[in-house]
Amino acid sequence: MTPRVGILAPIAWRVPPRHYGPWERVVSLLTEGLVERGVDVTLFATADSVTAARLESVAPRSLNEDPSLDPKVWECLHIANAYERAAAFGVDLIHNHYDFLPLSYSGLTRIPLVTTIHGFSSEQILPVYQRYDRKVTYVSISDADRHPSLTYAATIYHGIDLGEFTPRTTAGEDLVFFGRIHPDKGVAEAIEVARRTERRLVIAGIIHDEEYFARQIAPHIDDDRVRYVGSAGPQERDEILGNALALVHLVNFAEPFGLSMIEAMACGTPVIGRRRGAVPEVVEDGRTGFVVDDIAAAVDAVGVVERLDRAAIRARCAERFSRDRMVEDYLRVYEGVLARGASGVR
Amino acid sequence: MTPRVGILAPIAWRVPPRHYGPWERVVSLLTEGLVERGVDVTLFATADSVTAARLESVAPRSLNEDPSLDPKVWECLHIANAYERAAAFGVDLIHNHYDFLPLSYSGLTRIPLVTTIHGFSSEQILPVYQRYDRKVTYVSISDADRHPSLTYAATIYHGIDLGEFTPRTTAGEDLVFFGRIHPDKGVAEAIEVARRTERRLVIAGIIHDEEYFARQIAPHIDDDRVRYVGSAGPQERDEILGNALALVHLVNFAEPFGLSMIEAMACGTPVIGRRRGAVPEVVEDGRTGFVVDDIAAAVDAVGVVERLDRAAIRARCAERFSRDRMVEDYLRVYEGVLARGASGVR
Repeated sequence: MTPRVGILAPIAWRVPPRHYGPWERVVSLLTEGLVERGVDVTLFATADSVTAARLESVAPRSLNEDPSLDPKVWECLHIANAYERAAAFGVDLIHNHYDFLPLSYSGLTRIPLVTTIHGFSSEQILPVYQRYDRKVTYVSISDADRHPSLTYAATIYHGIDLGEFTPRTTAGEDLVFFGRIHPDKGVAEAIEVARRTERRLVIAGIIHDEEYFARQIAPHIDDDRVRYVGSAGPQERDEILGNALALVHLVNFAEPFGLSMIEAMACGTPVIGRRRGAVPEVVEDGRTGFVVDDIAAAVDAVGVVERLDRAAIRARCAERFSRDRMVEDYLRVYEGVLARGASGVR
Repeated sequence: MTPRVGILAPIAWRVPPRHYGPWERVVSLLTEGLVERGVDVTLFATADSVTAARLESVAPRSLNEDPSLDPKVWECLHIANAYERAAAFGVDLIHNHYDFLPLSYSGLTRIPLVTTIHGFSSEQILPVYQRYDRKVTYVSISDADRHPSLTYAATIYHGIDLGEFTPRTTAGEDLVFFGRIHPDKGVAEAIEVARRTERRLVIAGIIHDEEYFARQIAPHIDDDRVRYVGSAGPQERDEILGNALALVHLVNFAEPFGLSMIEAMACGTPVIGRRRGAVPEVVEDGRTGFVVDDIAAAVDAVGVVERLDRAAIRARCAERFSRDRMVEDYLRVYEGVLARGASGVR
């Protein structure tokens, strides 16, 4: 039996996000993928969200797009509404993508809760996850992002819609950085790799750290060797990633996943990524890119990255990171949860 | 039948508060008063709280006393724990003193919720109160603090333990300001009244606005005409309020209630208060103090305030603002809620 599923989205951005919003992007892909398979899905998201599922909303717009909305007020109204309406719609389980606050409502309902932990914003939020460990079914988005004190049902890597990305079998000449402009993401390191390899670099993404941008990035932007193109929509993203020699992804933090890596691979573009967080899980060293320890190794990788088979990179991405694979993995988790519920084993 | 009551306290401070913490003070008085009447009370508060009721805690200490506690994390754990445990203890109703967040859990339980609205921190929190209007039984702490869009079961003025205040039939000579040092509270205005009437002024309270204190208060402190004694514990409070000619309470905002006014009256000390918020409800003009419109009127009031009968002020305070009266008023609300529940009318 196909379960009836309530998807609880964040309201930081609408679903799908207009520009930035990785959690909302994954929610959208999963929701539409479930609907295409005939699953009865209720999506709890902002009222201006776009979906083929049943849309249920209390927040008219996203918190980031309407500063008049008090986050604490609209968060709790949004979450409470999902729990209250889930019962009305006969939802079999709620799949939470909204971090820790919804966990605290889960003890008051019989509807099972699946929670994808999209990363821990800080160690301080662990007590909530620990309190509801085993009562809530946790899914990690990479093995690297698992916390040793928690119990997980599965690691499910994010998937993307490969139809949004054009496979290009010929390597481009330029390097690309794609992501938030923030020290965590290693933008300055990408510039340094481009400088040492005498490659051009295209930088795309929203500015999350103004001071970092002003001090360490902006001085290098000359619209020739280093170009900054701002936030890129789907079409521009396909062109920027697809036309690159490689994505340079020298993160300085334990990134939980890293959507831009699989988006590059979907175009056939290899990734040169730093061995932090989920990078060694996402990038298969010597096959879909190179996993490096420092800038020198990244420079060496640029020298040999053209040898990688771009068609094979795309194919490998389709195997490991397609939306359909993600949808199937989640359906398996849902079925496990409902089977346990039916047998009374929790 | 005496109801079994769960009291949901804030965790900004422990219960009772060590110094400042008006919501926690009211919670403590109500809780102990209910226990004395034989009511089965579970108090949900910080683990270091002191009570004769059954104490249930998840937060080890108060948020203001332990900055390592992430407020959002511990708030939701505290509230969820109360709802989860309330069922286990067979609680008949939960009485919420924790602002709006607990309302959003109320739709997921059959246990009725009574909520004392201790004031609206901003208009932005109204959507939550509006959403749960009539589902939750609201109590206002003054008629002035009622919002026209909400339905209330009662206005219940705060009460105090009159045993903590010594009645003094002879008026002192000094004026007193008692409360948070913040522009809202009219500390500078109290200094101005003291200057114009050539009276000494004692200022007691925690500093909530450092810049206001530094610019407008500190320059006047000379340890003779104007004394600042910091935050006052129960014994010091009794002495400071009791030995004053009058409490000067020239608030600049619609104060929802104003505990310091009734604390002064409990000593027999009259209040000179500005006609804002609950002041005209709490102060009976010409009987327990004077309700004034401006500083000039406050200055005039100081000239005649000694004529008021201090024994009568204390007696009137005992009638209107005793802890027992508050406890009885709440018991009546509880009984009404449970009677409606029993008859199926909600």
